[in-house]
Amino acid sequence: MDTIFYNGKVYTMEPGWEPQSAVAVQDGIIQRVGSDEEILALKTEQTELADLQGKTMLPGFTDSHMHLLSYGYSLEKVNFYSARCIDDLVTLAKDFLSQRPYLTWLQGRGWNQEYWKEGRFPTRYDLDRISTDVPMSFTRACGHIIVVNSKALEVMGVTRDTEDPFGGHIDKDENGEPLGIFREAARDTVYNALPDLTVEDIKRMLKNGMDELVKAGITEVQTDDFEALPPGQYQKILDAYHQLEDEGLLKVRIFEQCLLASQPLLEQFLAEGHHTGEGTPMFRIGPLKLMADGSLGGRTAYLARPYADDPSTEGIPVFTQEQLDQLILTAQQGGMMAAVHCIGCGAADMTMHAIEAAQLACPKPDLRHAIVHCQITDQPLLEKFAKLNVVAHIQPAFVDDDIPIVEARVGRELTRTSYNWKTLQDSGVHIAGGSDSPVIDFSVMNGIYCAVTRQRLNGEPEGGWLPDQKLTAEEAVRAYTAGGAYASYDERVRGTIRNGKYADLVVLDKDIFAAAPEDIKDIKIEMTVLNGKTVYRR
Amino acid sequence: MDTIFYNGKVYTMEPGWEPQSAVAVQDGIIQRVGSDEEILALKTEQTELADLQGKTMLPGFTDSHMHLLSYGYSLEKVNFYSARCIDDLVTLAKDFLSQRPYLTWLQGRGWNQEYWKEGRFPTRYDLDRISTDVPMSFTRACGHIIVVNSKALEVMGVTRDTEDPFGGHIDKDENGEPLGIFREAARDTVYNALPDLTVEDIKRMLKNGMDELVKAGITEVQTDDFEALPPGQYQKILDAYHQLEDEGLLKVRIFEQCLLASQPLLEQFLAEGHHTGEGTPMFRIGPLKLMADGSLGGRTAYLARPYADDPSTEGIPVFTQEQLDQLILTAQQGGMMAAVHCIGCGAADMTMHAIEAAQLACPKPDLRHAIVHCQITDQPLLEKFAKLNVVAHIQPAFVDDDIPIVEARVGRELTRTSYNWKTLQDSGVHIAGGSDSPVIDFSVMNGIYCAVTRQRLNGEPEGGWLPDQKLTAEEAVRAYTAGGAYASYDERVRGTIRNGKYADLVVLDKDIFAAAPEDIKDIKIEMTVLNGKTVYRR
Repeated sequence: MDTIFYNGKVYTMEPGWEPQSAVAVQDGIIQRVGSDEEILALKTEQTELADLQGKTMLPGFTDSHMHLLSYGYSLEKVNFYSARCIDDLVTLAKDFLSQRPYLTWLQGRGWNQEYWKEGRFPTRYDLDRISTDVPMSFTRACGHIIVVNSKALEVMGVTRDTEDPFGGHIDKDENGEPLGIFREAARDTVYNALPDLTVEDIKRMLKNGMDELVKAGITEVQTDDFEALPPGQYQKILDAYHQLEDEGLLKVRIFEQCLLASQPLLEQFLAEGHHTGEGTPMFRIGPLKLMADGSLGGRTAYLARPYADDPSTEGIPVFTQEQLDQLILTAQQGGMMAAVHCIGCGAADMTMHAIEAAQLACPKPDLRHAIVHCQITDQPLLEKFAKLNVVAHIQPAFVDDDIPIVEARVGRELTRTSYNWKTLQDSGVHIAGGSDSPVIDFSVMNGIYCAVTRQRLNGEPEGGWLPDQKLTAEEAVRAYTAGGAYASYDERVRGTIRNGKYADLVVLDKDIFAAAPEDIKDIKIEMTVLNGKTVYRR
Repeated sequence: MDTIFYNGKVYTMEPGWEPQSAVAVQDGIIQRVGSDEEILALKTEQTELADLQGKTMLPGFTDSHMHLLSYGYSLEKVNFYSARCIDDLVTLAKDFLSQRPYLTWLQGRGWNQEYWKEGRFPTRYDLDRISTDVPMSFTRACGHIIVVNSKALEVMGVTRDTEDPFGGHIDKDENGEPLGIFREAARDTVYNALPDLTVEDIKRMLKNGMDELVKAGITEVQTDDFEALPPGQYQKILDAYHQLEDEGLLKVRIFEQCLLASQPLLEQFLAEGHHTGEGTPMFRIGPLKLMADGSLGGRTAYLARPYADDPSTEGIPVFTQEQLDQLILTAQQGGMMAAVHCIGCGAADMTMHAIEAAQLACPKPDLRHAIVHCQITDQPLLEKFAKLNVVAHIQPAFVDDDIPIVEARVGRELTRTSYNWKTLQDSGVHIAGGSDSPVIDFSVMNGIYCAVTRQRLNGEPEGGWLPDQKLTAEEAVRAYTAGGAYASYDERVRGTIRNGKYADLVVLDKDIFAAAPEDIKDIKIEMTVLNGKTVYRR
């Protein structure tokens, strides 16, 4: 036996199993689960013993929907939220850059002059104090304004003669020299100048991202990465993953949610021979990822009925029904499941229609099509999930942002059947938990806390929001373990702690099933194990 | 859609699912489950509609352990239990033979002169009234005496000069002529003369057997057939199945439990390239089947402690520990799971030891080794099932025979932890239901009745035997559906009614979940569906 974990509280998440105390691992596979006495009897001279010191072990977590590359990219953007003056901004950026000599363009975000003693925008001259060699661009907290340094202006070819683009403005001083400030549509000038990501850049970002994921106990991510590059450049991402795997640097299993948002792009991808499940135990092609609508905050989630707080709009579907039907049928024919972003019930209805039509035209009923987000739903839609065997990818910690706005946006009646994850689960739908990181933090403990309490991270509202939709801690853990495994066709090899499954494990500092619900978010990850190897230890 | 079943009460056996009313099938696969309204909307011109008339539909049943070939063989043996005189015997045999012109040797069983008005044994001369062309041999109810006709004597070469074998007796008349009666060891003379089964014989027996199985709603059997032929002749059985499949005559899925009871035979089988899972959706090689002990009735079940009602014996293990270890290790190395007949706790202990040793020496923890029967068990043994992930193949209707004798055989204390199927199930062990036919009838309704009531078919004892071990009807149905599917690695494709699974279905005349437990055994099978095709209708 290679490794024996003992003296723990091992929740296998197998139906009917009592907690065990020890797990034996060989060749990356769980060989046996049982009492210390039984498992320690399997010890040989080669066995490494790992004393869990009474701590709680669970199957490694799956994040069923996030954006690993964008998250890794975000780690290379300096964050100015804490700055209280321009000197702070300069110091933060200098320190950040000095630790990352590989950066060929420094990006930053989150500055807000309102919180600064100077009270004014930064300019190219402030930024030149950081570097005149490395171009840089820092976005204001609002997202609508970017400031760049002189080197960036030079690279972009912006001079006193550059005119404002339509709908945008380039600030200039009293002598007509550009100040480095780009507003609204003028930001495109900056975006277009950013260097393309190389395969090396992508590898570094993925690797840095995975280093953080393992700290959260995550051992598989179902990740939409293609969105981080211009359409059609996905080969660089596939190359990056394959190189990382060859170099032994994948710390987390990857099920790639492939954003291919147009018919020609999807057809090209399929013609290259790709399909769901292609790959290795560490990296596989997952579903076709599509965005069927926008967001609730921006009222672009498609409801197919007027917003309660703005009857002039019903939200915006990204595709016509015909386009969506054709995309999903094409995926179906090519052996790709679809995972479709639907925040609004109108988008989800369209997606259910497309799935049903594809299943009828080209029956492959075990393709586990999925709806990602599943936020605004009505009763008939909730029932369709089970009928069409559609997996629900939920992000429980979204309630932290959404509780205050849902009822305003969609009204009381539709709210009652929305974010109805307990109803979905109890009707036999497979629920998979995730984060949508970097949209929100990928802390699994935050997600479980929100699913169990139906409260924001600050504890509001008392008693929880739509409290009949609370999941038990066991159900919530299941969403991040067995549920996530089902979503990537892995129920035979992952998702519970059982003989024959991958030794993907996580150790918590407290017993999540004994903890008070409000304390779950504070539980710490002690250790993460992938294929029997410790990839993180606190 | 090829077929729509509607207006039914469809219990999918999927966790969380409410009863549905309709199922849509195409290409042999379940495409959709839902309400009549939803499913009938999928109707096209080609669709065949099947009105279930409110009746109950379940997933097709699995019999996880039986002997299909022996059962089919038994259908070619005339049964004399109802005979009340020698004329009855002659008439029964004549009728039977006239309907089966293909028989080259007529076998019979169950005669007992004690119930006859003549009060004497039948002789060759009585049997010659049936036929003097076809040899025949009829076994007495006790099994210890066989009578044959003159043609059989001729074929066997038995004359007045034939001497009694050691331990046996050949009856002769006052002139020294053999009467056709063979006692004890003399029976071997008859057995050795029986014609070898040809592939055609085997096909006919399997086919006749399957015709009966579908009447019980069974759509897969896990069957030990090799035991019906002399060791090493299994190729004829494989040929028979392959020919039946090619001819489209397999009505039931087969998972062959391969009895290969010696090391050279097992090694030969593996060297031929066989392994568990080899085959097609209709016929697959299953486990290595082994017999680790005998029976409780005959006190040959190995207890490893004295029998309560005969302290002179502990039962008889078939193998030494070393032999069993070696067989199971060889299977493990060759990618074959083992399914081991263990009635007694001693045999089960030895088997658990062998499984554990094999898993340590050559880890393949997803090989779903199984113990068949699981009757006499103690507490440590019950716990081992879950720990070693050993599947329990149970035959609930065995309690009909065994209730009166268990406590006498093994004492009160060991009885309390025996036939403990509820305990096994609640500890997360996968339970698969079966019959051991032709040892007992393969009626699934009898099996479920016995599992739920823990009573004999006559209703005794009141309140049930070890009543804390009663399964619920749902749990018992699960043993014959999802449990059986797990045992043959089929949880993705069989065992519940869900999109993407084989359309293997059964319709009952009553709702098994609404029926009183004592009425379950009287529920009738209305219809059996395999791959979407109706293979039986009452």
